[in-house]
Amino acid sequence: MTDVSDDRQAWRELAQQFRVDSIRVSSAVGSGHPTSSLSAAELMSVLVSKHFRYRVDSPKSPHNDHLLFSKGHASPLYYSILLAIGAVDEEEFQTYRRRGSRLEGHPTPILPWVDVATGSLGQGLPIGVGVALAGKRLDRLPYRVWVLCGDSEMAEGSMWEAFATASYEGLDNLTAIIDVNRLGQTGPTRYEWDLGLYAERLRAFGWHTVEIDGHDVDAVDAAYAEAVATGNKPTAIIARTVKGKGVEWVANENGAHGKPVEDAEKAIAELGGRRDMRITPPAPDESGRRHMFEGGGPLSLPRYEVGQKVATRKAYGEALTALGKARPEIVVLDGEVGNSTYTELFAQAIPERFFQMYIAEQQMVGAAVGLQVRGWRPFAATFAAFLTRAYDFVRMGAVSRVSMSLCGSHAGVSIGEDGPSQMGLEDLAALRAVHGSTVVYPCDANQTAKLLALLADESGITYMRTTRQATPVIYGPDEEFSIGGSRVLRASDDDQVTVVAAGITVPEALAAADRLAQDGLSAQVIDLYSVKPLDSATLVEAVRRTQRVITVEDHWPEGGLGEAVFASLAEAGVPFVGELLAVHIMPGSATPEEELADVGIDSTAITDAVRGLLDRSIDQAGGRRVAATGRAG
Amino acid sequence: MTDVSDDRQAWRELAQQFRVDSIRVSSAVGSGHPTSSLSAAELMSVLVSKHFRYRVDSPKSPHNDHLLFSKGHASPLYYSILLAIGAVDEEEFQTYRRRGSRLEGHPTPILPWVDVATGSLGQGLPIGVGVALAGKRLDRLPYRVWVLCGDSEMAEGSMWEAFATASYEGLDNLTAIIDVNRLGQTGPTRYEWDLGLYAERLRAFGWHTVEIDGHDVDAVDAAYAEAVATGNKPTAIIARTVKGKGVEWVANENGAHGKPVEDAEKAIAELGGRRDMRITPPAPDESGRRHMFEGGGPLSLPRYEVGQKVATRKAYGEALTALGKARPEIVVLDGEVGNSTYTELFAQAIPERFFQMYIAEQQMVGAAVGLQVRGWRPFAATFAAFLTRAYDFVRMGAVSRVSMSLCGSHAGVSIGEDGPSQMGLEDLAALRAVHGSTVVYPCDANQTAKLLALLADESGITYMRTTRQATPVIYGPDEEFSIGGSRVLRASDDDQVTVVAAGITVPEALAAADRLAQDGLSAQVIDLYSVKPLDSATLVEAVRRTQRVITVEDHWPEGGLGEAVFASLAEAGVPFVGELLAVHIMPGSATPEEELADVGIDSTAITDAVRGLLDRSIDQAGGRRVAATGRAG
Repeated sequence: MTDVSDDRQAWRELAQQFRVDSIRVSSAVGSGHPTSSLSAAELMSVLVSKHFRYRVDSPKSPHNDHLLFSKGHASPLYYSILLAIGAVDEEEFQTYRRRGSRLEGHPTPILPWVDVATGSLGQGLPIGVGVALAGKRLDRLPYRVWVLCGDSEMAEGSMWEAFATASYEGLDNLTAIIDVNRLGQTGPTRYEWDLGLYAERLRAFGWHTVEIDGHDVDAVDAAYAEAVATGNKPTAIIARTVKGKGVEWVANENGAHGKPVEDAEKAIAELGGRRDMRITPPAPDESGRRHMFEGGGPLSLPRYEVGQKVATRKAYGEALTALGKARPEIVVLDGEVGNSTYTELFAQAIPERFFQMYIAEQQMVGAAVGLQVRGWRPFAATFAAFLTRAYDFVRMGAVSRVSMSLCGSHAGVSIGEDGPSQMGLEDLAALRAVHGSTVVYPCDANQTAKLLALLADESGITYMRTTRQATPVIYGPDEEFSIGGSRVLRASDDDQVTVVAAGITVPEALAAADRLAQDGLSAQVIDLYSVKPLDSATLVEAVRRTQRVITVEDHWPEGGLGEAVFASLAEAGVPFVGELLAVHIMPGSATPEEELADVGIDSTAITDAVRGLLDRSIDQAGGRRVAATGRAG
Repeated sequence: MTDVSDDRQAWRELAQQFRVDSIRVSSAVGSGHPTSSLSAAELMSVLVSKHFRYRVDSPKSPHNDHLLFSKGHASPLYYSILLAIGAVDEEEFQTYRRRGSRLEGHPTPILPWVDVATGSLGQGLPIGVGVALAGKRLDRLPYRVWVLCGDSEMAEGSMWEAFATASYEGLDNLTAIIDVNRLGQTGPTRYEWDLGLYAERLRAFGWHTVEIDGHDVDAVDAAYAEAVATGNKPTAIIARTVKGKGVEWVANENGAHGKPVEDAEKAIAELGGRRDMRITPPAPDESGRRHMFEGGGPLSLPRYEVGQKVATRKAYGEALTALGKARPEIVVLDGEVGNSTYTELFAQAIPERFFQMYIAEQQMVGAAVGLQVRGWRPFAATFAAFLTRAYDFVRMGAVSRVSMSLCGSHAGVSIGEDGPSQMGLEDLAALRAVHGSTVVYPCDANQTAKLLALLADESGITYMRTTRQATPVIYGPDEEFSIGGSRVLRASDDDQVTVVAAGITVPEALAAADRLAQDGLSAQVIDLYSVKPLDSATLVEAVRRTQRVITVEDHWPEGGLGEAVFASLAEAGVPFVGELLAVHIMPGSATPEEELADVGIDSTAITDAVRGLLDRSIDQAGGRRVAATGRAG
C-alpha cells in the first residue's frame, strides 16, 4: 500500500488505473458501462487518495465516510476502487457481472462496502441526505457523505427534493460530485457542458458550488478541500468531464454508452497499460463516540377498551410513540401529513428523532433508507395513496436489503368524501410485490399496537395499512398476534362458508355473519391481518370444511387479499369455489358507509355474496354451476 | 352574465363571492378545504374575468385555454368558479362531496370542464406541461395553460421536472400561479413567505417570474398580462397570499387546514354576505385551425419469419413506428432510453410526434396525460423497472379516465447481467392494480405487433411488457390475437397438467412440454398474453380436464400472472391443485439463461414442477397430499 495522500502524480496514475481496470473488467464479461466510468476517474482517484476517510477492514465503523454511487451504472469504476483499496482481490474483480458474484452489474450491499443499491438514477443523493442527516442529528459524528452523481440524473425530480432538503437541513457533511460528461444514454443531455446552469440552480437551492475541470487533479483536490471547509451548507462539485476520457475512439462520442470499449487491448495501451497500485484511504477521525439517545426500557403499548371506537391510524401514532420511548434506535419520518398519519404524536414526544420531509415522498423513503444505513430503525408514514410516489425507492430498498417500516394511512374507499385521489387502493398489491416484504392490515386499535411492536423486529421492508375512520375495538389489549398469523373470529361445526377479511372489512364481515346467523346460515370469519406472509394453514383448515370462500377487501381486486388467499389455497390443492369482493368500480365522494356499500364490500354485500355462493357448489366434473346471482367467471 | 373583464371592483367582489361560496359549500357537507380556497380567490377571480379565454358551453373546444388546479384540494374554489361561470347551478353546487355528485372532494373529469384529476400534489404542473406541449408542437394553437399550484407542493420533485421541461421546451403558453399562502397541512411550509427564494429557483430553472401580493387585483392583473406578453419562456407568478384570507379567526392560522370554517354564518357575514354574480370568461381566439399531421392510411405492421429471433422490445419499436405512420394522432414519449425501448425508431421516422422527456419518468407520464387531454394518443416507454417511478401518475391517470399506452421494457430477470435494479419484477402487479387497465405481455415479435395495434384502440391505461433479449418468433405474421384472449399452444386429450406462461416463459414452457413428451407425459401449454383481462373461459376449460395447473412468470410471485390465474379459477369453482413458479429469490447478475434457471422459471424448473405436481392429486376430503418434492403450502 502506498501513501498517496499528497502525490499528484499518483492520483493521475490511479485514475488511469481505474480506467484500465474499468475497461478490462467490462470487456472480459462483455457488458457494463466503461465510458461512464472513465469520465469520473480523477474525481474518484483524488477522493479515495486524500479526502475519503475510511477503514476498508471495518466497513461498518460509525466513523467512516460514506461513498454512494448515485450513478450506479459506473460500477466498473466503483469496483476498480474496491480493488485499489484492497477490498476485493483480482480474482473476485474478474467475477464482475457473473453468476454468483458479489460484483453485480450495479452495486448492491451484498458487498459490505456498499451502503445501498443504486442503478435506478436519482436515488443515491436522496439516500445520501438520509445518511448525512444521521451524521448530523443522530450519530453526531463528523463523517462525511460523498455522492457521485451523473448529469443525466439531474433531470430526476428526486434529485431536487434532495437538493432542497439538504440545504434546508444545513447538511455541510454532504458533497454531491456531479460528473458532467455531457452525454446520456441516447445522446447529449439537456444542458451538455453548461456548468454555469447547474451551478446557478444549485446555488438557488442553497448549495455551495464549485465548478471545475473534472480531469484536473489539482482542481479536484481543491474542490474537495473547499467542500470540507464549507460550513452550514452542502457543497456541489460540478465537474466538466469527458465520457470515455482517455480512449480516443470513444471519448466524447455518442453511441458508446453502456457497452464495452471496442479494442480493449489498444485502449489499455493508450492508457499506459495495466497498473497495480494499492492505496489506503486516509483514516477517519475516531475520537468521537456515536451518540445514543437516552431512554429505552420496557415497552408500554397503549391499551384500548373493547367497544371503544378508535382509528387504527391513531393507534399507530400512539403505539409508535410508545415504541419510540422504549427503543432509542427508532426514528420517524413523515411527508407533512403527520396530523393525518398521527406521527405528530411521536414528533411531539420525541422531536429529536422525528424528520419532517415535507411533501416529498421520494425523499422521505430515500432518507429512511439512508438513516437505516447507519443502524437506525426508520418508520416512515404518509397516505397509502401517496406512497405510490416512492414506489421505485421501495423497490430499490429491497435490492438494498433495507430494514424499514412504512405506513400508509387513509387506505381504501372508506376515507369517504375526499374521493379517489386520496384513497390507497393499490398499496397491498404494490407492497406485497416487494421482495421479502411484510404486509399487515390491522382492524382495530389493540391489534395495530401489537402488530406495530412486532414490525419493529422484522427485517426487510414492512408495511402497515391503516384506516382513516374510527373502527370498533374488538380485541382486548392483552391479545397476541403474530406476523404470518390470523384470527378466526367466528367458527362452528356448521359453517357453510369462510369469509376472509382484514382491516375495515372485518367489522363488516362480522356484521354479515350475525345477519346470516339470524337466517340459520353459518359463516366462518377469519381476520387475515397478516396479508404477507399469509396464514395458509388456517385458511386450508377452514376451507377444507366449508369449500366456499369469500374474500373482502377495501382495495382493487388485483394483487390484494383475495388473490393472495386464492393462490395459497390453490397451491394447497384444496377444492373450493371462491368469490372475491373488492373495489370493482371507480369510487367517487360519499360518506364512508356509502362508499363501502357502493363498491360492494359492506356487510350487505358480504351477506348477498354468501347467499349467492351457497347456491353454488364445486362442480367435481370441473367447471362451476353458475347460479342466477353469480358473476360470470 | 356581466362583463367584468375590466372592472376592478367586480374582481374584488367575485373573489369575495368565491370565498363565501367555498365556505358555504364546505360547511354544508362538513368537510373540504375552504382555507386553501380563500387564499387564491383574487388569483382566480381576475383570471376568469379577464385572462382565461374559454367557452363554458364548449369545454372540449380546441381553442379554449386550460385551467388546472394542481392544488386540487382547493376544489371549493374551483367549483365556485364553475358556479360563477354558469357551468354548474346552485343545486348541483350543493351536492359537493355527496354520493353520486360530479363535484367530488378533488376535481375529476367526470365534470366536462375538468381536464384531469388532481389531488395528489405535484401532478397538475407536469400534466400542464403536456397540454402546453400539445399546444405548441401538435395542435399549434394559441391557447394558454394556467396551473394553480400550492406552495407545499413545491417540495415535490415532479414540480421541478416540470419546471425544467417547460423552460427547455420554451413553453411561453404555460403559466404557473403559485399560491404562497405560507401554511401547509401541519404547519408552516419550508420557506413560508420567502417569495424571493422561489423566484430565484424558478429563474435558475429558466422561467420568467413575477412576485406579487396575491390579493391585490391590479397586481394580479398586471402579472397575467406580463405572462401573456412574455415570449420564449414560461412564466411563474409567485403570489404572497394569506391562507383563510378574509375570515379573521382562520386567516394565517395554523390548524385550520382541511376543515370547514368554524361559524360559517359569521364568516360569510364578515365577507359581506352571499353574492350571486355570474360572469362569462373572455372568448378564445378561434381564428386558427387545429394542426393535423399528414399521413395516415392503412396500417402496415412489421412481419417476422417464424424461427427468427427478435426481441419483443424491438418489435414494439417497429410496430409503433408503423402505427405512427398509419395514425397521425399517435405520439410517443420516452425517458431517454429510446435505444433500449426502441422508441428511437419512431423518433427517427416521425420526429415531430416524438417527445424526449429525459430521465424524468414522472414528467413523462404527466406529459402523456396532458397530451391526451387534447385528443392525442400517447405511447410512453421506459424500462419496466423505472415506470415504478411514475406509479402515482399512473394511479391518478385512472382517476382522470385517461387513455394512454405505457410500455415497460427489460422486464424480468431475463435481462441478465445488469442485475436487479434494472429488472422490472413488480410491473404486472402494479399495472394490473390500476382501475380499468389492460395488461399484455407478448412472447414474440408478431404477437407484439398485433397486440400493439389493438392497444391503440383500447380506452383506459394500457400496459405492454417487453423483453430485452431476442426470443424465437413462434407465431406467423398473419395470426390474430385479442385483448382478453390467449392461445393454446399444446393440447391433447391426454394432457395431465396445464402450464400457463406468458412472454419470456412461453418458449421455456414449450421446451418443457417437449421434454416431458419424451417421457410420455403430456402437458397442455397456454400462452396467456393478455394478463388483464384474462381469458377465464379457456383456463377453465383446460383445467377442468387436467385439474393441475402450473403458472410460470418472470415476476415476483405476488400480483402477477399466477395469482390472476388462480383467482380466476377459484371464482369459477374448478377444483385444481396449482403451483406458482415465479421469482422467489432476489436475483443477482448472470446470463439470461442462468437467471431463468437460478430463480426457477426455466424449462427445467417447469419440467420438475410438472413431475412434482403429477405426484399430487386434489385431496377431495380437503387439503393436499404433500409429495416429497412439493413445497409446503
